[in-house]
Order: sequence, then structure tokens, then C-alpha cells
Amino acid sequence: MTSSGVDGKVLRKKLNKVVLAYSGGLDTSVIVPWLRENYGCEVVCFTADVGQGVQELEGLEQKAKDSGACQLVVKDLKEEFVRDFVFPCLRAGAIYERKYLLGTSMARPVIAKAMVDVAKEVGADAVAHGCTGKGNDQVRFELTFFALNPQLTVVVPWREWEITGREDAIEYAIKHNVPVPVTKKSIYSRDRNLWHLSHEGDILEDPASEPKEDMYMMTVDPKEAPDEPEYVKIGIVEGLPVSINGKELSPASLVSELNKIGGKHGIGRVDMVENRLVGMKSRGVYETPGGTILFTAVSELESLTLDRETIQIKDFLALKYAELVYAGRWFDPLRESMDAFMKEITKTSTGSVTLKLYKGSVSVTGRESPNSLYRQDISSFESGDIYNQADAAGFIRLYGLPMRVRAMLEKGL
Amino acid sequence: MTSSGVDGKVLRKKLNKVVLAYSGGLDTSVIVPWLRENYGCEVVCFTADVGQGVQELEGLEQKAKDSGACQLVVKDLKEEFVRDFVFPCLRAGAIYERKYLLGTSMARPVIAKAMVDVAKEVGADAVAHGCTGKGNDQVRFELTFFALNPQLTVVVPWREWEITGREDAIEYAIKHNVPVPVTKKSIYSRDRNLWHLSHEGDILEDPASEPKEDMYMMTVDPKEAPDEPEYVKIGIVEGLPVSINGKELSPASLVSELNKIGGKHGIGRVDMVENRLVGMKSRGVYETPGGTILFTAVSELESLTLDRETIQIKDFLALKYAELVYAGRWFDPLRESMDAFMKEITKTSTGSVTLKLYKGSVSVTGRESPNSLYRQDISSFESGDIYNQADAAGFIRLYGLPMRVRAMLEKGL
Amino acid sequence: MTSSGVDGKVLRKKLNKVVLAYSGGLDTSVIVPWLRENYGCEVVCFTADVGQGVQELEGLEQKAKDSGACQLVVKDLKEEFVRDFVFPCLRAGAIYERKYLLGTSMARPVIAKAMVDVAKEVGADAVAHGCTGKGNDQVRFELTFFALNPQLTVVVPWREWEITGREDAIEYAIKHNVPVPVTKKSIYSRDRNLWHLSHEGDILEDPASEPKEDMYMMTVDPKEAPDEPEYVKIGIVEGLPVSINGKELSPASLVSELNKIGGKHGIGRVDMVENRLVGMKSRGVYETPGGTILFTAVSELESLTLDRETIQIKDFLALKYAELVYAGRWFDPLRESMDAFMKEITKTSTGSVTLKLYKGSVSVTGRESPNSLYRQDISSFESGDIYNQADAAGFIRLYGLPMRVRAMLEKGL
Amino acid sequence: MTSSGVDGKVLRKKLNKVVLAYSGGLDTSVIVPWLRENYGCEVVCFTADVGQGVQELEGLEQKAKDSGACQLVVKDLKEEFVRDFVFPCLRAGAIYERKYLLGTSMARPVIAKAMVDVAKEVGADAVAHGCTGKGNDQVRFELTFFALNPQLTVVVPWREWEITGREDAIEYAIKHNVPVPVTKKSIYSRDRNLWHLSHEGDILEDPASEPKEDMYMMTVDPKEAPDEPEYVKIGIVEGLPVSINGKELSPASLVSELNKIGGKHGIGRVDMVENRLVGMKSRGVYETPGGTILFTAVSELESLTLDRETIQIKDFLALKYAELVYAGRWFDPLRESMDAFMKEITKTSTGSVTLKLYKGSVSVTGRESPNSLYRQDISSFESGDIYNQADAAGFIRLYGLPMRVRAMLEKGL
Repeated sequence: MTSSGVDGKVLRKKLNKVVLAYSGGLDTSVIVPWLRENYGCEVVCFTADVGQGVQELEGLEQKAKDSGACQLVVKDLKEEFVRDFVFPCLRAGAIYERKYLLGTSMARPVIAKAMVDVAKEVGADAVAHGCTGKGNDQVRFELTFFALNPQLTVVVPWREWEITGREDAIEYAIKHNVPVPVTKKSIYSRDRNLWHLSHEGDILEDPASEPKEDMYMMTVDPKEAPDEPEYVKIGIVEGLPVSINGKELSPASLVSELNKIGGKHGIGRVDMVENRLVGMKSRGVYETPGGTILFTAVSELESLTLDRETIQIKDFLALKYAELVYAGRWFDPLRESMDAFMKEITKTSTGSVTLKLYKGSVSVTGRESPNSLYRQDISSFESGDIYNQADAAGFIRLYGLPMRVRAMLEKGL
Repeated sequence: MTSSGVDGKVLRKKLNKVVLAYSGGLDTSVIVPWLRENYGCEVVCFTADVGQGVQELEGLEQKAKDSGACQLVVKDLKEEFVRDFVFPCLRAGAIYERKYLLGTSMARPVIAKAMVDVAKEVGADAVAHGCTGKGNDQVRFELTFFALNPQLTVVVPWREWEITGREDAIEYAIKHNVPVPVTKKSIYSRDRNLWHLSHEGDILEDPASEPKEDMYMMTVDPKEAPDEPEYVKIGIVEGLPVSINGKELSPASLVSELNKIGGKHGIGRVDMVENRLVGMKSRGVYETPGGTILFTAVSELESLTLDRETIQIKDFLALKYAELVYAGRWFDPLRESMDAFMKEITKTSTGSVTLKLYKGSVSVTGRESPNSLYRQDISSFESGDIYNQADAAGFIRLYGLPMRVRAMLEKGL
Repeated sequence: MTSSGVDGKVLRKKLNKVVLAYSGGLDTSVIVPWLRENYGCEVVCFTADVGQGVQELEGLEQKAKDSGACQLVVKDLKEEFVRDFVFPCLRAGAIYERKYLLGTSMARPVIAKAMVDVAKEVGADAVAHGCTGKGNDQVRFELTFFALNPQLTVVVPWREWEITGREDAIEYAIKHNVPVPVTKKSIYSRDRNLWHLSHEGDILEDPASEPKEDMYMMTVDPKEAPDEPEYVKIGIVEGLPVSINGKELSPASLVSELNKIGGKHGIGRVDMVENRLVGMKSRGVYETPGGTILFTAVSELESLTLDRETIQIKDFLALKYAELVYAGRWFDPLRESMDAFMKEITKTSTGSVTLKLYKGSVSVTGRESPNSLYRQDISSFESGDIYNQADAAGFIRLYGLPMRVRAMLEKGL
Repeated sequence: MTSSGVDGKVLRKKLNKVVLAYSGGLDTSVIVPWLRENYGCEVVCFTADVGQGVQELEGLEQKAKDSGACQLVVKDLKEEFVRDFVFPCLRAGAIYERKYLLGTSMARPVIAKAMVDVAKEVGADAVAHGCTGKGNDQVRFELTFFALNPQLTVVVPWREWEITGREDAIEYAIKHNVPVPVTKKSIYSRDRNLWHLSHEGDILEDPASEPKEDMYMMTVDPKEAPDEPEYVKIGIVEGLPVSINGKELSPASLVSELNKIGGKHGIGRVDMVENRLVGMKSRGVYETPGGTILFTAVSELESLTLDRETIQIKDFLALKYAELVYAGRWFDPLRESMDAFMKEITKTSTGSVTLKLYKGSVSVTGRESPNSLYRQDISSFESGDIYNQADAAGFIRLYGLPMRVRAMLEKGL
């Protein structure tokens, strides 16, 4: 912790080598010389491939070095991200504040975990990220650092330096010979990975304004989607998706494939105002085409395999699970213990769900499971051996006994 | 309770006058002579207008009398139903098993309550309903009777008589000179009111089968919906909807109007397998066009007016609230106390939400509230007075302290 | 299920061989000939030793045969009972309605499970128990039978026969040459096992009456307890007790030993009115001397090893866990999944707790753990490296941000 | 907020008049000149009488003025404290981390609320407290200030100044002519009010050490308590205590009287390690003699008036309610809404509970209520009209249906 660094430049602790979460954009490019200047350290840039798009990784090593980094480390975390972070959330049914499928929340811990590993590999004594002091991501990065290596110093330039906007940053870049990205800065603040794409800023800052159509990147306008619905069948084993229309795919490939299918039909746009962990509200728009299809499918299969009280408890814990993930508490025994519950309770959630995609909506058209607790011989209007209608009389009288006793008391009976 | 009646015909208790929940269909028509024959009682038929459709009420009095009833009482409960039953559930955000908007669950207590009132008015000592022993509705009727007048005897022919199907019922009707409805029995078992229409039975009994398009009655096929989206703005006061596009409407009129708008766009179809209170699973399809729009709007406004922890607790209680309503426990101090919570917590949920309806989907495009806790001056990327980014460092260090301490312990620090 | 048997004697299904939960008391003695007479079956008596006391097992085989049984099977389930049923509840912190340590609730499933095994061993097609139709135990037995072998027919004489009291039973016994126990029937209805002893009936039926001192059997009157406190140190590994004052003991021996120590000091009396699963309230008094000590110790250790939010969630789940166990839902995937959570979350709950026993009360005097998250260097009034007081300012400002924003809104700021 | 003040003396904002939470001890005495020196302001000392003991209030005005205050305001908040803060928590059953009866947590908001009032009365623009940056109390004070007047500047010397211990403080006092209290500083850090007395520090900082007997002040050693038990009967109306042994008393008088009775019998000592809101663990010992009696009584009465599911939900919400109170979130709509639930659910909790006090323990010996849902005619072993044992068969078959279906599936039936 650079706690002394907060109070003034001169007091900053000397660091040896810092691993920086690096994207190649203006902000993280400027951080490289700033770290060297202020902490007298070497800077190792680290970029995780979590599916944010190939173009972002091209030419990155040169760029990092041009900014003053001694090294760029790139790791492909796509399969780990989906398998170890996304899929457990999917199995848990974790949705934050009714709508958010946690795309960014799940990506931060996998990246931060890799940074801790890289720090060990390169012998760094500190890590740094380029998140601002207003968002959730700073919390997610830092809690992961705390949990996995509490000895690492964490440097957060945006909470320390004097740069307060894009102009300052460009000026600083020019002064330090850092190549300024030629691409025009988007009016939106975005985060993209294999699971989702988020948008914040600009007109979205007015919660009453509708987003413009040209903002969306992973999904077509439902109006432009095909006029014919498409059916897709998701195969599920123990609460986790394994196949699309019978074709088995690795976790990352499966999500990637569903993003294409869902995106084509305009599936998975969410527009919401959410409560950040740091106490403020913010408005964001998310595109999660494949994820939306998967949440629908996995949840639906449970309607066959879980009973009433089990669904109630699972849904309560899902609320809590989502809170923890949103708050960056991935590597917390509480989340891990809740995951043990989720894993156990979904052991029979195997089967398939068929969905219809059409102009922005996903609807379920069928579900099947070898472990289905649905029995036509019980629920149909015909009478049968297992369920005797006369039993209902006794059931209701006992289930309703407290109500009857209360009413009798009120009437003095 | 006709507890002795369960064991054999001869033991049935003599009743004086029974109020029967009467629809005019074959089943409840046959119950009239059956009650007279088996309990030696007069039968007062009762029909509630909860918005099931005008045609169902025409010629009903004659029909009831032809079946042997001494009287038909009809009450228009539409406004009471929506105002006192539907709207509290809406404010609570009560959804059963992720999807079901509780249409039938909310209608049963308002009808049963009216039956208790009618029983008092006509001096009846018993009430009867035509629900089978397999469903939830028997529970909802009977718990309401227990709560509001535990002295009433409850007669449930389907759990007592020997009639086991449509053929038996027709035979019994003919034998007792009851006019047999000429309308062909639907292949589906349906329940309709102002809020929704439910479908069960026939091919729906196979959870893997997609419903046929001709089953739907309140909503058009999204494919047939208009090619242009329609925007609708819902005005909300203290968690309850009051207006559409600025026009104030009574609760029932508002729902009715939204049913038309939503139905036209194919909004509000739900296909699910649910867990009944009596322990079995059943598959149902629901159409709730206006309700779907209203749940979306009311929930969305809370994103402006409630903070993070409040939403978490409210959502947990909503799960429980829905369970109670589904289980027929409307007149239970527990539901009433939870309602006191809901009423208090939504006191500031006033404002409006704009929604876009398009080919089966509802999406939010804007929300406004005079009580909004969203502040652009805090959330924007600019720095400001209220929120100091440096505070985040302290926040994260304390919020993450247990994690750090745990990690230090593991490392022996 | 003898569903047809409910309706009248003549319809009873023919059974081949029934395993009866047998105690040797009047009631279960009478059931033997009754089963033979009414179901035409052989009767295998089964008695589980769950620590109810040796005298109850003496001469039992002869007694069973004298009543007409073809065989008596006795199994010592004490270690299994404590290890597999009691200890998981202890680890979970499961207490029903604030006070009840679930002594009887945990014993029923271990007995019923053994009955299912015996039924298989002896080739029985049915099981029977002597519980009445008013209590919880019938539910606990039958749900276990359902879960472990749904093909077994379950016979419940008390819900079927005409015997309605002790006099009837004695008369029936005499008529069928069943030896009537010479011991006078206790005025209390009791259930005893290694974990506890429960009392119901007689003056306890008035919730305003204090129990008489001579009712208690496992604990001395606190007034008669030693005038000097006794200290006892419980060793705990992963949430489960393993030793007393450093001496390692098997689960059953450990509980047995603590019963002696606790009983001597008048520890563990609970007097309560509880809500039975079947909808009624009942008043019971429990003696759980060793159990009370163990719950105190295990819970206390968690104050060192679990953080704030973890305790909150664990305590919530403990409420639910207790409900399930009380309701007889031991062999339910929901309880098993909650157990997976409990097991995971208590992995670091290793250490010891020292307790002082004195005239009816247990108080904690110390706790230690190698995994303790308590750090004197943080909590003491001295300042230190890990915790910087200035951080609290930022923490409070962000933690209280929603409150500040709400207040500013109210003041129009 | 003196956010700029954190960074260095020179930047401190000029204040006009500060209301200081003042006890007359060394720390708050030193704060008076420190505020004047550093903020150039007048200082109004405020002392609340929440029952901390008369001697603490004597000569206080002179002391405050000698330290440099322009004024001392004293308010007797005892009745308000108990009626508006303690009793709602009692009704809610709010206990933090299994043991803590929230004595200090409830006192902070009533004091802070009075400070906001005083600030308005005297025209102050700021408030200050003497809590350290490590504890919960800073949070409780500041959240109340935020909620009730977000425009007040909050000054927290312990998070700002250079004084780091008692020696520094004495030196500062002498230098500024502040009279140094002659009473020797206790080795314990204590907080006392009408409800409780807390102890922290010294040997308590080792969680393995037993507290010394001479530390306790409100309760006698159970060994020194009377050899004869004392019975006390608490009268309760709508969840709130109103009388002792039939004598009606005001809220504060009732607690005061029970403190004497309970203290004499050594009731209400709690020794625990708790999780502070700021992320650390601390060990504290509490004496709450009257409070322990009241919690036992109020909770016990609910065993007569609430049904099973209601107790479950109430107990869950009580966990949450306690968290909010502990965290200083008294003036939060979430707590207020939960209070609306608690008020409604306890409307019938009227009656009395008799308790036996003996050498450190409280045990219930009887409970009565005109609204009792306990009915001897149902629970007794005799059969009756309201409860028919045969109903239990149907109840169990339906309640256990999901289990049976699952087991049948596993067996391929």
C-alpha cells in the first residue's frame, strides 16, 4: 500500500518493479512513464486476452516499449475466464440488481489473478491498474491482489496523480514521448470481453435518454434482425452448458458461437441504472447476447430438476452470490462456500433446453432432462396411484391450521 | 369441515345453505344438484367479475336456476382485484419461480373473500368450490375461508364425489336435468381475469413441446405484431402505476388499457414448468401483456429511488412475498407485515418510466423521478465536491481488511 | 402407502413382512398383533440404540416375541447418530425456533434409515412406526422412508386403528396375550437419546406452568449444582468437536462425557413452546447438557475464524438448515447442499474454546485458533501499519454516500 | 467534510461554531482548544444524559468552560433513548453476531441526532466527535449527521491530529491550560448508558484470557448472587415491555429497575469477539442485565403469538436489522421499513412472561397471552374436533411428494 504516497509526491515509497494492467490506450500508456518517474521502478505491462477483440492486441508490444515499459506479457485467459469465472456464475444464476450479467465483474478477478502470477514470475514488488477512483473495477482488482498476495504494493495512479482529464493526459504523453493513440477516443467508456460489452458515459449519463442505435456493437437492432425466428438447443450437464444444437464446444467457443447467433437476432441488450459498490448510482448499457441465451437455458432446466423450496433458497443465495461477485469478492471463502452449495444442488441439472430467438427476445419452447421431477402421471387431470386427491383435504387442513386457529381466536371460538 | 364426509356418503353433515363459486361451465353446473342431493341444502351461486370477459356472464342467472340454484349473486370485483390484490404484488415485485406474475393466485382470495361476504348476506353456513384436489386453487380458496370465517363448512365436491371425468359429469347432468353447455370443452384448462390468462393441459403436458400458436388469446404472435415499435410511458406514484402516457386511469382501466397495447405487440407470454404447493410440478403458459409492462416499469423506477442494500433486501422479501401469495396466504399477518415493509420502502418511488414495445419484447428506454438518487455530478468522469476519488483508497482498504488479514495469515505475515 | 387402508378395515392391502420401530413399551407392543391381524403379515421388530439407556434394551427380544414378532433386530447407532447427524447440525449452528437443539429431529432419520436397511435384509415389503398423527415424528420417519425406498408400504396404526388411549391399548393387549408392561406409565411423554431428553404432556400442557423439579433426569437442579465453577476446554477441528480438556474422544463418547459434566452443573435445560410442522403449537422441555456446551463452543470459535458477512450468511442458512432438519427433510438434496456450504465455510474453524460451567449457565472465558482473523496489532489502540485511521474517513464517506445523497435530495441540495 | 483538512494543517477550512460531543474526559477536553486553534471556531460542548451515571455530569459546565468552550448544553435523552431506539430493537429481536445487544450502537444515533438539533439551535456549521478512527462509533455518528443534516461539516480530531496517545494529550492539555482530570485513566475503554456497559482493552485484547472479576460494574459475580432464585414477570403490549410484576413503568424506569434486579443476580454478562464495521475484529465484554431479561421475555412471548413461518422470516430480518443498527444506519429508510414490518408483525404480541433469575442465568418458567395461538385442545394427546389425525396422512404424502418423486426417479419407477 502506498499509503504514504497519498499525501504528497516526495513521500512515495521506492518500488523495484511494477506489473501494470495495460490496454495500450492513452491512459495506461501514460501510466508507464508516470510510474517510472514517481516510483523509480521498472514497468512490466500485462495484457490479458479475455476476448476483447484481436485488433486490440496487435502491435501492443512495440507500443508498450515505446511508452517505456521493459516488457509486455500477454496471456490468453479466454478459456479460464469462461470456465472458472463465468460458468460458476451461470450455474449460480447470479444476476446483479435484476439485470446485470456481471460481465466486467467476472473478468477483473481473472485478470488480477494473472497479474499476481506475472508479478511472481518477473519478480515484481508491486502492481498497478488504470481504473479511476469512482468505479467498481478498482475494488475488484485490489481485493484480488489482497487475497492472492497481500505483500504486493498496489499503485493506483488515478487516485494519486494530478492528471484529471484527457487533455492533461495527452500533454503528459507528449512531454514524456509516449505515442498518443491516433484513434479518436470513443464518446463512450466501454469494457469488452468474451461475455459482454458495456457502455457508459455521454448521453447515457441522463437516465431518461434512450441510447442511440449506433452505440451497439455486439447486437443488431432487433428491427434489423431476421424476420424468421431461429431455434437453438442448449445441452447442459450438471448446471453447465456443453453443447449447441448437439455440437459439443469448449466453454469459450460455446459462448463465442452463441454471441454470433444471439447478436444476429438482437438478443441481450440491457439498459439499467445500477448501484456501484462505492455508493453511487451509474447508468450503463450492456450487450450480452450469448450470456442472455445461456442464463435463460440454465435457469429453465432447473424448473424440471429442482423442487419448490430448493428454487426458493437457490434464488436467495443467487442474489447474495451476485453481490459478492459484483463487489470483487471472488477469492473469498464465502463465495467459494456458496459455490459448493451451487455445485451440489445442480448435480442433477442435466438435459437440454430449446429456445426461440426472434427480434430481440429469447423464449423457451421446450425442456428435457433424464432427471426431470415433472411427471405427467401426477399432474394430468387423470387420477393416478401416486397422488390421491383426497390427500389434499388433510394437507390443506394442516397447512392452514395456524390460520384457522388465529381466526378462531379472533372470533372467540 | 366435512371431515366425516370424506369417509362415506351416508355420514355427510346436513347443511342449510351453501354459497358455490360458480362459472356456468359443466363442472360447477353439476355441483349444484350434487350439493342439494348430498347435503340437503339450498345452493346460492356466486360469480365474481374479475375481468374474465363479458360473454361468460350473459344468461348466467337462468343457467344457475336451471341447475337448481335458488339464487345467483354476481359481483364486479375488477377494481378491488387490481387495487387491493394486484397492485400490492406489483409494488412488492412478487414473481413466483422467476416467471409467474401470479394472475390466478391473486384472484382467488378476492373471490373467496366475496364468497364469505355473500355467505353472511344470505345466511349460508357453508361454501363450496369446483377446484380439483390436484391444484393450487383449492388451497387458495380454503385458506381464505379459514382466515375470514373459520365457522363456515367447506365442501369440495372434486375431493368427495365419484365423478371422475367429463363423461361422468355429462351423465350426471342429464340425469339431474342440468343443461349441458353446448360449447365444446376447450382442450386446454384455462383461467382468465383482468390480469392474465393461463393455459394448461393437452400438449402442454409434455414440457418438451412448444405450444401451438392458436392457443393464445390475449396476445398476438410476435411475428404478427406491428413492424414499428411503440413507446409507452407509465406514471408511478409511491410504487403504484397511475397513468399511461400522462393519462390517469383507475387501476382496472389502466391494466385493461395496457392489455390492449401489450397484446397488440405480443408482450407477456410466459411458458414454464412450476412447482405447485401440493408438491407436484405442472406446465403452464401464461399471457400477461399489461402486467409484464407494469412489472418492468415499476421495477425500473426503483433503480433510481432505492440504494444497493435496499434493493437486495427488497428482492429477497419479494421472493418470500410471492411464495405466500402463490400459496394462498393472502390474509396472513406475515404477508400483511411484509406489505407494511413494501409500502414504506416504496414511499419515494414516484416518477415515470418509458418503455419500448416491439414484437414480443419490452425494453426500458428512460426513467425519471423527483426522488432520484442518481446524480450526474457524482457519477460522471469529472471530479466533484461530493465524491473525492482519494476516499476510495481508504474505503477499499477497510472493506478489504478481512481479506487482507486472511491472506496475511495464510502467508504467515 | 396403505391409501386404501385409510378408508375402512376390509380394504387393507395384504402385506408380507413389516419392519416395526419397536421400543417394548405398551404402544409398540400392541402394534405387533394388530399388524398381524390387520395386514396378515409377519412382524420384524427393530430397536435402535441411539443412547436412550441400557435398561430399555434388556429382555427386549423375549418381549417382542411374546407380542408375536418373528424376530427382533437391534442395532447400535450411537456413533453414526452423533457423527453423521448431530455433528453436521452442530457445525451448521442449526437451532430451531431460537432454542431447540433438534435432539429428536436428528434421531428419527438415523433410525428410519436403519429400518430401510433392515427391511432389505429381511425381505420386508413394509415398515411401521408407532408415532401419533399429531406430532413431527411421523413426518420424519415417513419422509426418510420416501427418500430411501419409495416402494416400501408405510403403515401407521395410530392414524388407522380404533385404539384411542391407554385403556383401549391395555384391553387390546390382554385380548391378544401381549404382556402389559408393569412399569407405570410416566405422566410425561418422553424421548431420550445420547443428545437429549425431551418432556411433553401433563402440567407442561399449560404454557404458564413451571415444570416440576422431579421431571428432570439428565441435569441436576442448578441449586443443587456444585458451588464451584468448572472449566472445560473443547478442542475443535474444522467445525467439529474432537476433544475435552485435551483428551480426544469419539463423537459418541465425547457427547456422553459432556452430558455427565454438563448434567452435574445443571446445564442445558430448555423450556419452550414450539411450532410443529403439522401446524400446531406444543410445549416441551428439553435437557441437552453436553449439546448446550458444544453449541456454545463451536459457535464461539467462529468469532475468530469467520468475518462479518460470512457470519451473517451462515446464520441465515442455519435458520433454514434447522427448519429442514426439524421437518424431517434430512435426506433432501437441499439439506445436503446446505451442508456442502457449511463444510466449506468451517474449514478453518480449528482451535479451542474454554467454557465455565456454573449452576445452570455456560459462559465463554477464552478462545484460540491457529486460523484466527483477530489481530491485536490492528485492533489495539496503538496505531499500526496494516490499519491507517485516516482510511476510515474515506470509508465512511463512501459507505454513507447513499445516505448523504438522499439527505441532500430532501434538502434540495 | 473537512476533506482538505486531511492533507495538512494549513488547508483547514475556517469554521464558525462547532458542536462537540463532550464527556469531560481528557480526550474531549483537549479537543476543545484544538478545534479553536485549528479551525478558528467557537466550541459548544454537548453532553447527552443517556444514563451513563450522575457523577459524570457534575461540575461539567465549569470543566467545559475551563477548556475553552463557550457553552455546555446538556440534554436528558434517557426516555427518548429507551423508547425510540432501544425498544424498537427489542421488538425486532435485533442481536448482533449472536450475542451483542447493541447498547452502544443504539446510543450513538440518539446523541448524534441531538447534536444536529443543538447545532441548529446555536447556529453551528459543524459538529465534532472524539471517536478514534478504528471503531464503529465514528461511523454511527457520521452517518447520523449525513442523514439529518448533510450540510454540517464533520470534524474528527483523532483522524486528523498528531496526538497519538495519552501522554501527547496530557502535554497538549497542559500547554493549553486545560485542566487534566485527576482520576486515573481506567485500564479499560468503557461505554456506559442505561442499557449497558461495555469494556475493551487491556487483558481483553487477548481473546484467550478470561476477564478479571473486578472489571464488572453493573453485575455481581454469579457466585456472589443470592442463593435463592428470584421470579420476575414482564408485562408486554404489542411487542414492547410495559410492566414489572404488574407495576407499569416508563421505558427508562423499567430498564433501570431491571438493571438493579438483573445485576443483583449476575445476569447479562457477554464476552465476545466481534467484527467491527471497519473490517477488524475486536474483543469486548458487555454487561446488559435488564436488557438480557427483556430480550428473553419479549422473544418468549412470540412463541405463543407467532406461527412457524412468521418466526422464520422475523428471525431472518432480525439478523439484518441488527446489522443496520450496528453499522450506524438508524436513519435509513431500509431500517425504517423493516421497523414497519416489525411493528405490524408484533401487533398481537401482548401478554406476560415469567422468568427465574438465578446466579447468572435467566430461565423462562411461564408465558401467557390473550392472543395465544397455543391450544391445549389441539396439542394434547386427546383427539378433538379441530385436528383430525387422519389428515396427517394426506399432509405427509403431499409434503413429501417431491421426495417421493425424486426417489422413484432414482429407482427408475
